Amino acid sequence: MITLATDFGDPYPAAMKGVVARRFADADAPVPRLVDVSHRFPRQDVRSAAFWLRFVLPEFPPAVHCVVVDPGVGTDRAALVVRAGEHALVGPDNGVLLPAARALAGADCDAATDPTAGIEPFEVAVEDPDSHTFHGRDVFAPVAADVHRAGVADLDRLPALSRTGDVDPLSFPEPTVDGDGAAGEVLVVDEFGNVVTNVPGGVLDGREGTTVAVGTPDGTVTAPVARSYARVGSGDRLVTVGSHGNVELAVNRGRGDEAFGVAARDRIDLAFG
Amino acid sequence: MITLATDFGDPYPAAMKGVVARRFADADAPVPRLVDVSHRFPRQDVRSAAFWLRFVLPEFPPAVHCVVVDPGVGTDRAALVVRAGEHALVGPDNGVLLPAARALAGADCDAATDPTAGIEPFEVAVEDPDSHTFHGRDVFAPVAADVHRAGVADLDRLPALSRTGDVDPLSFPEPTVDGDGAAGEVLVVDEFGNVVTNVPGGVLDGREGTTVAVGTPDGTVTAPVARSYARVGSGDRLVTVGSHGNVELAVNRGRGDEAFGVAARDRIDLAFG
Amino acid sequence: MITLATDFGDPYPAAMKGVVARRFADADAPVPRLVDVSHRFPRQDVRSAAFWLRFVLPEFPPAVHCVVVDPGVGTDRAALVVRAGEHALVGPDNGVLLPAARALAGADCDAATDPTAGIEPFEVAVEDPDSHTFHGRDVFAPVAADVHRAGVADLDRLPALSRTGDVDPLSFPEPTVDGDGAAGEVLVVDEFGNVVTNVPGGVLDGREGTTVAVGTPDGTVTAPVARSYARVGSGDRLVTVGSHGNVELAVNRGRGDEAFGVAARDRIDLAFG
Repeated sequence: MITLATDFGDPYPAAMKGVVARRFADADAPVPRLVDVSHRFPRQDVRSAAFWLRFVLPEFPPAVHCVVVDPGVGTDRAALVVRAGEHALVGPDNGVLLPAARALAGADCDAATDPTAGIEPFEVAVEDPDSHTFHGRDVFAPVAADVHRAGVADLDRLPALSRTGDVDPLSFPEPTVDGDGAAGEVLVVDEFGNVVTNVPGGVLDGREGTTVAVGTPDGTVTAPVARSYARVGSGDRLVTVGSHGNVELAVNRGRGDEAFGVAARDRIDLAFG
Repeated sequence: MITLATDFGDPYPAAMKGVVARRFADADAPVPRLVDVSHRFPRQDVRSAAFWLRFVLPEFPPAVHCVVVDPGVGTDRAALVVRAGEHALVGPDNGVLLPAARALAGADCDAATDPTAGIEPFEVAVEDPDSHTFHGRDVFAPVAADVHRAGVADLDRLPALSRTGDVDPLSFPEPTVDGDGAAGEVLVVDEFGNVVTNVPGGVLDGREGTTVAVGTPDGTVTAPVARSYARVGSGDRLVTVGSHGNVELAVNRGRGDEAFGVAARDRIDLAFG
Repeated sequence: MITLATDFGDPYPAAMKGVVARRFADADAPVPRLVDVSHRFPRQDVRSAAFWLRFVLPEFPPAVHCVVVDPGVGTDRAALVVRAGEHALVGPDNGVLLPAARALAGADCDAATDPTAGIEPFEVAVEDPDSHTFHGRDVFAPVAADVHRAGVADLDRLPALSRTGDVDPLSFPEPTVDGDGAAGEVLVVDEFGNVVTNVPGGVLDGREGTTVAVGTPDGTVTAPVARSYARVGSGDRLVTVGSHGNVELAVNRGRGDEAFGVAARDRIDLAFG
């Protein structure tokens, strides 16, 4: 199985699928299953893509994951393959692969001080690609196909790969939590306006039905803690634990980002009632 | 084959695909084909989703259909598996599965008086899921995988399933038709603005080229009956029979909802010229 | 493998997938892999779809490509199957298939004077379909399935197909190029605002870093030649060679169509500095 995740929209990912399929067909090998993770990641937003990949990829069985969110395409940023347990991730060296790779490897370490603990990065020797603007088609899709054909356990057999310890790091900001509240940041806003913070959901344990004051750059908004959307009225705000395990600011049948007045990377403070 | 239909947008459905794939991989079983029906159903609009499923699912060969349009996630609404002929549908007990299930079973009955005639509903015993907000990943995708593995003919073998006759009904409003016209309702507006009504297309038989007066909440608009979009000028209104077999209000290369001034659930009256 | 490309959005393409799958299942034949090329081609824009298909389909191994961008649905336009090397394309006779077919066949000829050189068109005898508005489901998907089952080499065995030389042509406008610049046209604008022209990228050879004056219907805008987006500042314009090999007008992390003030089919003039 090869998964594909990009910020390319339509129809560019189809060219990547064609390249992968042709590479197997040319070798008379069966084409592996291709699964789209998303092609609508926020455009050129490496940190948001890294968040979503960490959220989604651990649900998958062992696979090769081809990721292209790549504002540095055409510069001298490296191309990477990262082995993480029985998975391999293929993509640009801008940190986008690392949080998901650490999660897939079960690496429970301080990403800020040792970004590659528990995972094995390889740099890809890239020959001059056809295009300086579409490495998804010309670099990463062919590498993902080659990695799948070689097998994740046998990456050392691929002459284009060489082990490296020097990768561009990426880590999410750390929240601060105490008994009265928490201070953190908005990691992503999903396309329906649900606001995902970096505050661990555990801070809401035992607080169902209490009121939280949410401090934002524009002021303070209050909302009840509720374990699911339908526990508040239609159009009403709530503070909940999202499916990612973090505190989420939401509106039942509405947009949390608008109701709370926040966007990705905004600071937020939670004060428990 | 497992089909997936949700109102989740991106990238949540990928987590469901990962869960299904992992469940088969963990059992060393081949992963069935996964086909996306849609992940852009109108958000939390159970009746619209039910319409689209009844429209699309009867085209498929026998399959397991996993449906998540679920405004009641995290409440005590039940989870269902509905057997319909050689198909099984998996989703929340809010009526979204029923019209498609009746169509797949070939059940030609009065849905308003006997919502489960011809189909076999089972309630799923749901253990406490990881998340109160993402049962697509934590409840319905695993159940769909288990149903596929057991086989639609063998649902009684699954200990989590128990037959039930008590399901939340859903039926579409009935139009009234006479020789001079029809009175009905807008069922859905598709993303290009085509307006699907509940009036059967047969009322337009023999009326090609005649004019229909369409009464809406805001007034009356006239348009010709035409069997396809290109039979009227670019930007012109038409009344046609859509691919669902119902009367559709449309504009050639434009938006019918704007030109006729209607939205889902609006009442409409058709007066034949 | 069957690829699908339409301007249908959601959820209509799922009905086509169901039809294809059922046609194989009914014959106890394995369902071929189905790959979505795009379902968001610009609505009823035959020339844009033809461009994207020529861009994407040559990446694929031999396959049947089912294409439905069909403003003439329900009129007397013919349905075609076009054999191009080991590929077959299925779709309406409006020219949308031809540029990709010529590219897949490796036909390097003057499309304006001989639109079918190097490719083999067949007309499909279409029986009265269920719907006058959804030939994707009722005509083209079944034909694509039948072509795949018969095999691209054996199209003459299909009784519904008859060879034809009379097809609706489509070709892209030709640019004029000299040593000082080029005059051409905008072919498409992608969904992120990148402006694809018909001017071959070779005109920019050796001009990296020089300034180009881009004449548009609204005036003249200057921008540097840069081989990739990140070589100019965030929000800055650039003139580059896109992954299609043509000159592209773009903005790093922004929209080229807005910054250059152009849309599909606008004339553009490039004057080299």
